[in-house]
Amino acid sequence: MTFTPYPSDPALDLVLEREVDVPPELVWKAWTTPDLLKQWFTPKPYETPQCEIDLRPGGGFRTVMRSPEGNEFDNVGCYLEVVPNEKLSWTSVLGPDYRPITADPDELQLTAVIELQPNGKGGTRYRAVAIHRDVAHCKRHEEMGFEQGWGIALDQLIEVVKGS
Amino acid sequence: MTFTPYPSDPALDLVLEREVDVPPELVWKAWTTPDLLKQWFTPKPYETPQCEIDLRPGGGFRTVMRSPEGNEFDNVGCYLEVVPNEKLSWTSVLGPDYRPITADPDELQLTAVIELQPNGKGGTRYRAVAIHRDVAHCKRHEEMGFEQGWGIALDQLIEVVKGS
Repeated sequence: MTFTPYPSDPALDLVLEREVDVPPELVWKAWTTPDLLKQWFTPKPYETPQCEIDLRPGGGFRTVMRSPEGNEFDNVGCYLEVVPNEKLSWTSVLGPDYRPITADPDELQLTAVIELQPNGKGGTRYRAVAIHRDVAHCKRHEEMGFEQGWGIALDQLIEVVKGS
Repeated sequence: MTFTPYPSDPALDLVLEREVDVPPELVWKAWTTPDLLKQWFTPKPYETPQCEIDLRPGGGFRTVMRSPEGNEFDNVGCYLEVVPNEKLSWTSVLGPDYRPITADPDELQLTAVIELQPNGKGGTRYRAVAIHRDVAHCKRHEEMGFEQGWGIALDQLIEVVKGS
């Protein structure tokens, strides 16, 4: 299959692109293995005490995030595309088996796509796209610190992968 | 691929199951060809003057429904699963390229799955599942006349296919 990057829209989507020095297979493993994901998914001192992954299109993706104060945030989503070592996408507006989710319309909803390509030097060209319904949601996510947050999480991922 | 029916939940989902005397290939064609779909998709005297189909997971599915009084209703969705002659699913909570849709939370949102299997007599075992976020939405869709509406549309589909 030829790689086609997600056609992101600068007004609606946020993109993190970076070359990392671990191969696509290990980045994939970190994204799809609950025991690994729990170690890197939320920038410290936030934690991810729970993670459930049903790795198939239509399968559920659940994470629980915990703040330093002990508040927990339960996030449920549904995988849309699962192409091993290449592409993983999911959305927060559907739950397991594509069931629409009852969501607070003010809450941040998104579809996320993670794209991995070998960089020819043993590493990975990593691209993460956060896809929003409108400009306001995109802006809000940017102000919440998308770039820093997803960047720190990626740093943590690399650290976990190298240590595992 | 072995056929696995959608795991519907009687409290949340509405199901139309029927054997029809046209083969899966023709039912598929009627669901995926805009010029055919426009002829059967809405129970008369409602009409479907417009239909756009981008037949791939992540592709857009748009229909415009017109009431006898001339009011038009624009419906946008996104295909989730496209397995020729076997399974077609889409959701109204995502638009093209899996982008979340800004929807009125009171509006009826659903994921739909159409499943087709040869019935061994030249026809099709047809199963349509409407998947809702909660009991209230399911009940409302039932009261709106799901069974009759989707049943009449299927009758119209068969008529169109036989005449084409």
